[in-house]
Amino acid sequence: MEAFVLRDAVKPGRVSQVGATETAEAVVSARKPYKLVSRDFHPDDSVIQVGPVAFGGDKVIVMSGPCAVESREQLMMTAEFMQRVGVPVMRGGAYKPRTSPYSFQGMRLDGLKMLAEARERYGVLIVTEAVDHESLANVAEWADIVQIGARNMQNFELLKAVGQCGRPVLLKRGMAATIDEWLLAAEYIAAHGNLNIILCERGIRTYETKTRNTLDISAVPVVKQLSHLPVVIDPSHAAGQWQWVLPLARAGVAAGADGLIIETHPNPAEALSDGPQSLNFRHMEELMEEVGRVARAVGRTL
Amino acid sequence: MEAFVLRDAVKPGRVSQVGATETAEAVVSARKPYKLVSRDFHPDDSVIQVGPVAFGGDKVIVMSGPCAVESREQLMMTAEFMQRVGVPVMRGGAYKPRTSPYSFQGMRLDGLKMLAEARERYGVLIVTEAVDHESLANVAEWADIVQIGARNMQNFELLKAVGQCGRPVLLKRGMAATIDEWLLAAEYIAAHGNLNIILCERGIRTYETKTRNTLDISAVPVVKQLSHLPVVIDPSHAAGQWQWVLPLARAGVAAGADGLIIETHPNPAEALSDGPQSLNFRHMEELMEEVGRVARAVGRTL
Amino acid sequence: MEAFVLRDAVKPGRVSQVGATETAEAVVSARKPYKLVSRDFHPDDSVIQVGPVAFGGDKVIVMSGPCAVESREQLMMTAEFMQRVGVPVMRGGAYKPRTSPYSFQGMRLDGLKMLAEARERYGVLIVTEAVDHESLANVAEWADIVQIGARNMQNFELLKAVGQCGRPVLLKRGMAATIDEWLLAAEYIAAHGNLNIILCERGIRTYETKTRNTLDISAVPVVKQLSHLPVVIDPSHAAGQWQWVLPLARAGVAAGADGLIIETHPNPAEALSDGPQSLNFRHMEELMEEVGRVARAVGRTL
Amino acid sequence: MEAFVLRDAVKPGRVSQVGATETAEAVVSARKPYKLVSRDFHPDDSVIQVGPVAFGGDKVIVMSGPCAVESREQLMMTAEFMQRVGVPVMRGGAYKPRTSPYSFQGMRLDGLKMLAEARERYGVLIVTEAVDHESLANVAEWADIVQIGARNMQNFELLKAVGQCGRPVLLKRGMAATIDEWLLAAEYIAAHGNLNIILCERGIRTYETKTRNTLDISAVPVVKQLSHLPVVIDPSHAAGQWQWVLPLARAGVAAGADGLIIETHPNPAEALSDGPQSLNFRHMEELMEEVGRVARAVGRTL
Repeated sequence: MEAFVLRDAVKPGRVSQVGATETAEAVVSARKPYKLVSRDFHPDDSVIQVGPVAFGGDKVIVMSGPCAVESREQLMMTAEFMQRVGVPVMRGGAYKPRTSPYSFQGMRLDGLKMLAEARERYGVLIVTEAVDHESLANVAEWADIVQIGARNMQNFELLKAVGQCGRPVLLKRGMAATIDEWLLAAEYIAAHGNLNIILCERGIRTYETKTRNTLDISAVPVVKQLSHLPVVIDPSHAAGQWQWVLPLARAGVAAGADGLIIETHPNPAEALSDGPQSLNFRHMEELMEEVGRVARAVGRTL
Repeated sequence: MEAFVLRDAVKPGRVSQVGATETAEAVVSARKPYKLVSRDFHPDDSVIQVGPVAFGGDKVIVMSGPCAVESREQLMMTAEFMQRVGVPVMRGGAYKPRTSPYSFQGMRLDGLKMLAEARERYGVLIVTEAVDHESLANVAEWADIVQIGARNMQNFELLKAVGQCGRPVLLKRGMAATIDEWLLAAEYIAAHGNLNIILCERGIRTYETKTRNTLDISAVPVVKQLSHLPVVIDPSHAAGQWQWVLPLARAGVAAGADGLIIETHPNPAEALSDGPQSLNFRHMEELMEEVGRVARAVGRTL
Repeated sequence: MEAFVLRDAVKPGRVSQVGATETAEAVVSARKPYKLVSRDFHPDDSVIQVGPVAFGGDKVIVMSGPCAVESREQLMMTAEFMQRVGVPVMRGGAYKPRTSPYSFQGMRLDGLKMLAEARERYGVLIVTEAVDHESLANVAEWADIVQIGARNMQNFELLKAVGQCGRPVLLKRGMAATIDEWLLAAEYIAAHGNLNIILCERGIRTYETKTRNTLDISAVPVVKQLSHLPVVIDPSHAAGQWQWVLPLARAGVAAGADGLIIETHPNPAEALSDGPQSLNFRHMEELMEEVGRVARAVGRTL
Repeated sequence: MEAFVLRDAVKPGRVSQVGATETAEAVVSARKPYKLVSRDFHPDDSVIQVGPVAFGGDKVIVMSGPCAVESREQLMMTAEFMQRVGVPVMRGGAYKPRTSPYSFQGMRLDGLKMLAEARERYGVLIVTEAVDHESLANVAEWADIVQIGARNMQNFELLKAVGQCGRPVLLKRGMAATIDEWLLAAEYIAAHGNLNIILCERGIRTYETKTRNTLDISAVPVVKQLSHLPVVIDPSHAAGQWQWVLPLARAGVAAGADGLIIETHPNPAEALSDGPQSLNFRHMEELMEEVGRVARAVGRTL
């Protein structure tokens, strides 16, 4: 009954001022199963402020970096590059949820510390994934944004904990989640105290096999209509092939996405995971230029 | 080798003389099941010339109009609008493949004649659907571009006839067709003599129910890599709701589409079919402006 | 207006007595888009009588034979086998809708004549596919049951003609058709005069790649609830691998299917199409025994 | 490195004797990404013994009970019924992963204790779901079989813990998981020490909306070919409507499933969750009879 009171620990930007649970409950409409994340409840766009970076405002926010943290050298090269080309947030997995138990499972706490070091040296913010209560505590301590991956989108016990972790969260859509289920997953986080939620469309599972997933580009305008939360897209996991990442990134921004998350690697051919879908630095630089032009065409900047 | 970039007036059957079938068959690679439509066979982009309009060149070609031809008045108002805002091709269904036998099935030959009259008066080219041999003969006589709808994408006997119809064809992707099956459907048309094929992505069937179909935006760069044929997108049938058509149209052009096909209606609330996904004239005008800006951002024009 | 009066030529078993079109129209409920094929309209099961064979009664009807008619010898061997093991209906494609224009397209009229000869010699009824108006006329002349394949389930012009062809029809579900769309396709046939419709579930397209299609076994009880028409299943096209055909056939009958259609070949390794999913004669004989046991367990016979 | 040595705590029936990890690794084939759960590694069927009950042997094992533990009275009535009709395993959720944060989340530890009491009084074994490390510890203490639900099938940190929990596990297939991903999830559990795994097909997500999910009946023979583990089916979550549960249960057993898990409720209309898909006691009794007949037809017993 009292489960979804907004907790004090959370300071969710512009949204934080929204009222008590009773109000929230009153708002629930017959048609929409979610309330705190619904646009009915908060008609204006939410802007999620993370240090100097604002998700959901005029700027399109680019996040980029390797699938996994593999070594100190790889990471520092990448962070230096991100700083140079103006990418404000670096991604990099320390805890890796892998389909096979025999695949590289991540550098875990060591990886997190390297990410923090990269932030220190190159001024990039850090987004990285948490996969259970323990890793969540560590990620919340060392990183700026907690990522919840597609496979954990309906790991409700983890979502409840994320509601109380005190950090903004990047919530990826499950690979077969409906938009309603995705917004309800966000509602779990919100109901447990955290409204600093950035939604991430990363492709859904369909019968088509040419691409790794099917980027559901329509999710951008649909979610924008239903919810006040910012939405970013992940064209790398959608495409599965680096050649298609650039056009999909342009499309995402043209559709109204508030940001992008792109896999890059200093040497994709040697990546321990997701090499085929990772851009090298030269292609990432091209992406920044081209996406910048599209952003300006739709009245935004990079 | 260059023989089947068929410019200006279409002379179907040129393909048969283009290195006879035996040669064509010899070209088939182990990996790609299609050949005439494959980029391996024709490395440059094909440009399909229809009167003054060129699909696959620098210009993004917009096609627009009602789902169905409903009346002379509706059609002339629409054609006049299209001329005024610079839409070069008008759509409008005369033969309507409807899910229910009790739904409006189209004005058929009468509709075709009205479309031809609209072309005469307002200088717009006409694209309209054929659903069997008989309607194909009529469409080829009265219209500029023959449309093959999603439900007939694997109506192979019809595809064979389209190969010999002497008109450019707009081939929609089946609602559960893989990209390979779609290109093989194009290959049917090509193998029977017609390489003036414009591919149209119109959304695929997935589990998501918010949208009518899921626009597979990735199909644009994937098809561009596999084939030399132009690709357009149909955001209206994908979205199913007019509010999402504009962002999807921008996304399509940003992804590299060579054109758009958009449903408009002078009064969507009174449309006999597809009203909810049809733009009114004001929104269509807005679309032309916004899409124009995105087109320029990717080095093209409208 | 007069389009869906039941024609005299048709003698749809128990259904034929149902009244005039006006009644039919009155029956349409807000919730169900179909009427003639709906159980609301005809509460009892329809039994479709084809010569000595009754679909929808106590007997489970097995149809079997090669994917395609390939030669006189292959066909006579098969028909002789079917007679011997008690399979009352033989399948065999004369007109083949193939994904690639370069695949074997069938023996067409010659194939039909061989099928008719096999019927003459071995007393098996013939079911074979029609793909357009011309082949429909031939199939209606030479065969006992007209098959409409998955790819033509929404070829509405063909469905209208099937409504007037004077033969019972086996209507396969489209590979991404909803149950409602499938029943509406049947409604097209019914509304144009033919209620002798046998529905066939043959697997739908999903993301799973181990099987060729996903047999939607639930469709059997769902359709039985919504419609009075008999339903059979095609485990061969669903599975795509002969090893899985037998368990799926047992499952279909246990779920309540009124029949099965199974691909067999005297020598699957040499089949011109669908070899991997074809049973050889020994496995088909095993199937008849095992399916017979399951049929009896659910109160039916083979 | 040593992570996937088989632990002593585990007593995996016939499988337990299989050797060291090095052997396991040697067995990995290029084509199959899993090894411990693969039939290549263990050609005979595994039989998972849970008290007096053996999964994977001649008997088809039925598990049944309410979606959620709601009250002591509901549970004791159900357990008494299960004992009376010969259902050896009772299900009942104490920890409920619910799509909405505002839905009933389960009685948690109190629910577990009631389940244990029911076992004590009526001699039924208990299967119930764990959703994180904490609930897993409790479930492993109070229940006989740990269930991992569809939404947690790729919660890899939980799977690792299940590998060390010392209890047999019922692993449900994720709602969009491929068969390979499902077997790899099982491999996680096996590699962390637990080979007592019962796989459960519960329907996959497709575009069809009549049913809640599409029961992938083919998964039974496919998994049986690829793996030595027993497979059961859950027709209740697949169908979403109780009327279709019985035919799907018969189909599952006919296809070769080693067991069934069925939702029942003393009064489905008042169930706190999944009422529409729950059988009442009378229908469950009918199911036992009908499924028994099909089991005997395929050479098994209930």
